[in-house]
Amino acid sequence: MRISQLAERTGVPVHTLKFYLRERVLPPGRATSRTSAEYGEEHVERVRLVRALIEHGGVPVAAVRRIVGVLESPPPSRHEMLGAAHSTLAGEDAGSGASPEVLALLAELGWCTWEEGPFAAELSRAVEAARAAGAPLTPEALRRYAEGMRAVAEVDVDLALAAGDPAEAMHTVVVGTVMVDPVLLALRRVAQEAVSSTRT
Amino acid sequence: MRISQLAERTGVPVHTLKFYLRERVLPPGRATSRTSAEYGEEHVERVRLVRALIEHGGVPVAAVRRIVGVLESPPPSRHEMLGAAHSTLAGEDAGSGASPEVLALLAELGWCTWEEGPFAAELSRAVEAARAAGAPLTPEALRRYAEGMRAVAEVDVDLALAAGDPAEAMHTVVVGTVMVDPVLLALRRVAQEAVSSTRT
Repeated sequence: MRISQLAERTGVPVHTLKFYLRERVLPPGRATSRTSAEYGEEHVERVRLVRALIEHGGVPVAAVRRIVGVLESPPPSRHEMLGAAHSTLAGEDAGSGASPEVLALLAELGWCTWEEGPFAAELSRAVEAARAAGAPLTPEALRRYAEGMRAVAEVDVDLALAAGDPAEAMHTVVVGTVMVDPVLLALRRVAQEAVSSTRT
Repeated sequence: MRISQLAERTGVPVHTLKFYLRERVLPPGRATSRTSAEYGEEHVERVRLVRALIEHGGVPVAAVRRIVGVLESPPPSRHEMLGAAHSTLAGEDAGSGASPEVLALLAELGWCTWEEGPFAAELSRAVEAARAAGAPLTPEALRRYAEGMRAVAEVDVDLALAAGDPAEAMHTVVVGTVMVDPVLLALRRVAQEAVSSTRT
């Protein structure tokens, strides 16, 4: 199909598709002349993914480029897959260095995690920022939050293991993590209303 | 203290404090002359809150203005508190209209929630966007995610109920919701690593 038809199929305007092409988050079509190209079903799927990541996931275009890059060349084994997905999601300036409190929490929970990975450090910074803003985030509250998010991660891993091959599993982890975040945050707020109504 | 001392105490530069004053997220100090004003401890606390919301919570300044507005005039009862907090957090253009799937899920879970409220609609949109991006968000996965987030909301409500008065409870709900979101998302990723390592 031509770019105008790709626009029609996906509901994304031609000028936005040209932006995606320039930013290399949409691969070029097969050139049919000096000025036109042919696009296929894989382009339709990619446009839907890119639009969802940018518009609904709020992912910056540079991060989308990393995500589609890693989806195009997934690691061979499931074991390496999560590490690659997380490096992609964390970005390059993620930093490292978990706080003693977070390391102690992970040890107490028996979580074998990548202590030097980006997310233990991100968690430490987020805890510090929440407390600086006056959130009453006690160690006990943090431990209970961790247990809730462990239940969430069980679902994440089940969905990734249900995928047919490492490439599909990678897609599930990356897209599922970014795009399900807003679902979880909305569920949290709806659940606050539900829990609150049973308590008061 | 003078504005330069407020900057020193909080680590926020004077030009940023002036921006906060212009944007009415920081109340004016007590005028001591035509060009200078005196700031107190309540300003120190407010600056910390505003900076955390903007810099770490990623909250737009207009939303910060709504949040500090509602914190300054909290509703009289705990019952009205959560609704007021949620209206503030959702913003004015939140829209409404939950999908039949989300309404059925809430009914199945026995969650008494505000169906016409902004978050059931936000949840419906987030589910749709995640699926459009190819996330394998089955109804069963959504139900399990909801159970995890219910455990999180139990902690939220416990912390709010532990607050001394409705004003402090309001602060806990608003600040705790916004500032703990990044903590939860980091915990999710750390938990993915922990769960994945026990499964593979």
